[in-house]
Amino acid sequence: MRDIAPTHRYRNNDKAIGVGNAFWDMSEQNGLAGIVAELEDGVLRTAEGHEFVNFTCCSYLDLDSHPAVIEGAIAALRRFGVLDHCIPRSRVQIPALLELEASLGELFGADVVSAISAGVASAGLLPLIASGHLGNGVRPLMVFDKNCHVSMAGAKPSCADETEVVSCDHHDVGFLEDMCKQYRRVCYVVDGSDSLGGYAPVLELAELQEKYGLLVYYDDSHSISAYGERGIGYVRTHCPVLDERTITVATLNKAFGTSGAAIMLDGYPKQVLRIVERFAGALSYSQPMNTAAVGASLASAEIHRTPELGLLQKRLYANIELFDSLVTSEQAGSTYPIRVVPVSDETVVAAGRKVFEAGFYVSPVFFPIVARGTAGLRVMLRAGQTEEQIRALCAVLGEATAA
Amino acid sequence: MRDIAPTHRYRNNDKAIGVGNAFWDMSEQNGLAGIVAELEDGVLRTAEGHEFVNFTCCSYLDLDSHPAVIEGAIAALRRFGVLDHCIPRSRVQIPALLELEASLGELFGADVVSAISAGVASAGLLPLIASGHLGNGVRPLMVFDKNCHVSMAGAKPSCADETEVVSCDHHDVGFLEDMCKQYRRVCYVVDGSDSLGGYAPVLELAELQEKYGLLVYYDDSHSISAYGERGIGYVRTHCPVLDERTITVATLNKAFGTSGAAIMLDGYPKQVLRIVERFAGALSYSQPMNTAAVGASLASAEIHRTPELGLLQKRLYANIELFDSLVTSEQAGSTYPIRVVPVSDETVVAAGRKVFEAGFYVSPVFFPIVARGTAGLRVMLRAGQTEEQIRALCAVLGEATAA
Repeated sequence: MRDIAPTHRYRNNDKAIGVGNAFWDMSEQNGLAGIVAELEDGVLRTAEGHEFVNFTCCSYLDLDSHPAVIEGAIAALRRFGVLDHCIPRSRVQIPALLELEASLGELFGADVVSAISAGVASAGLLPLIASGHLGNGVRPLMVFDKNCHVSMAGAKPSCADETEVVSCDHHDVGFLEDMCKQYRRVCYVVDGSDSLGGYAPVLELAELQEKYGLLVYYDDSHSISAYGERGIGYVRTHCPVLDERTITVATLNKAFGTSGAAIMLDGYPKQVLRIVERFAGALSYSQPMNTAAVGASLASAEIHRTPELGLLQKRLYANIELFDSLVTSEQAGSTYPIRVVPVSDETVVAAGRKVFEAGFYVSPVFFPIVARGTAGLRVMLRAGQTEEQIRALCAVLGEATAA
Repeated sequence: MRDIAPTHRYRNNDKAIGVGNAFWDMSEQNGLAGIVAELEDGVLRTAEGHEFVNFTCCSYLDLDSHPAVIEGAIAALRRFGVLDHCIPRSRVQIPALLELEASLGELFGADVVSAISAGVASAGLLPLIASGHLGNGVRPLMVFDKNCHVSMAGAKPSCADETEVVSCDHHDVGFLEDMCKQYRRVCYVVDGSDSLGGYAPVLELAELQEKYGLLVYYDDSHSISAYGERGIGYVRTHCPVLDERTITVATLNKAFGTSGAAIMLDGYPKQVLRIVERFAGALSYSQPMNTAAVGASLASAEIHRTPELGLLQKRLYANIELFDSLVTSEQAGSTYPIRVVPVSDETVVAAGRKVFEAGFYVSPVFFPIVARGTAGLRVMLRAGQTEEQIRALCAVLGEATAA
């Protein structure tokens, strides 16, 4: 019988599951994971009757429960009469996705291609970038930021069969410049907005883009809608290079409030856009966004065009400021809606439980998910949380983390 | 400047795009791809006013436009009040997915885990099988059928970083037995029902499963709902090994008529199901099926429990028989709803155009998508097509393919 020795060059389930499963088991044993609750009027209620406010939800503007968004989904279901009329869109399509892409294209000022999720978008696009088909025809060295979301990092093995793949330290612009000097073309894969708080150095990267033709692939899922004029997100607000050297994907499930994802492209000729539609993995063969998600997204896009979007962003920022005035964190002072409140390794789970019992869900992060000594409670602010709720949470956080 | 030489062990965009793009361009230049049309009362209508019946739609039972399915989607939107309440389900979830999984679990007689698409399910599950975490703990040799759908074949690079990966000829049971003799564990990855017609040899495979513990991973997307008691599909109807050695995924976008996918597992302990939920790629971090898809799927599952399902299947089979009585194809005589009508390489595109102009969309397949000399018009039968429509299509097919 032959024995198999895994290569583990880009992924290692033994390690990932060894590390992660212990974290999840401990979270669940302490009632801080595996929670099932009905949502009503912004409050979650378990079958046992425990009520709590969700402070780990990425719907930063509460557009997920906006009546116009839900009615938009229903209107599209009635208009199109199907969730999906199953045939590859490259053959025959009902106009749903085209209308959505036109609307989002106008909103974000880009050529937009839709996908069922940002993960599906990245899994499809990154190998196409690796082979040079989405880009300038040259196979780039693919440099993955070591902190980039797993939905991007998961594409490493596929990219490595089309070109060379390396990882770099978080936001290591110096390393990128070295690589740009050595390779004809480099692509950097990074979050525009990190899931533990913080933004990509878009201006420094733009310098490399201008100087060396660096291609940057951003996932800006955590800032779309929540940041910038009409919610165009952090990357497209600040990046001065909005042409074929910048590719941005963003989920529509977070602040946008619906379901699906948008790929934002600039300056690519029509033939390249067709190649994306035809060959970017699941974009070509798999399920598209369903019509309910399309209708909800059209409605959310309309809200983005009205002053209501700015009001919701202001409420979110006011809530972030209020939180920062009451609780210290490394992220304090930024517009980013995520905060990690430091707690000792020994007490973080107990602190999370205390906060939950008091009626608030925040998510504990601790070893082995993060390094020992860097544990904390992750808090996500939203526009719809009331001043009273935030003050009450902060009071409980003060007591729980002092313990 | 360093030059990059791609390995191209498991994928090759140069080749795939070189081959495929020519096919799509030619299809589109001839008006047989890139078609946009509104769907009304089962007929598609382009902006220019051309009307046609879709004979390349996989909604084999027409459940996609069933009023109860659409109303189910709307009811769920109103009940849950969000399409998605964005937080990983392993932390906190509204009961939507759990209710769906319970219903589908009862329907299919399995432990069901949902996913946004069958492609996302395979991309998540196959590497977990490769590392032995979904299975019996032994890293298997992963044998991919050379015809298996690209949504499975696309996982080869990721699997190859966790174990050994090979391909085999279509349904090559002899090769599989050889491998079973050489490796402690083998996993065979194959379509339960092929997209060009035909079923997997489940009984022969079951012998290897019993004799050697072969693990078989089936994508049964083309037969779910359309085949078997209560629509349990071809694999689960005929496979005598419904335990941890058989894993089946199926889309809900085809005959089931909604949006999403079901993973069907048997005999795995709860810890393994949690590992799937937590570590099967996008199942753990990405967007779940939205509530509209959940509500539609609950409604479709209800229809599957009534005599209506059997009536729809009977109508589908009657339509297949009618077609077979009028047009010759290699697939004639099977319950499979797909037929490929042979046409010469030189005339297949013109034939496809003639059929389209007469008011029917069938999809031409030709070189470089299939080998020279094997071109044809792919026809998909559905329950909702009328006898008149089928007779008219067959008459046109006769004229067009005789030319």
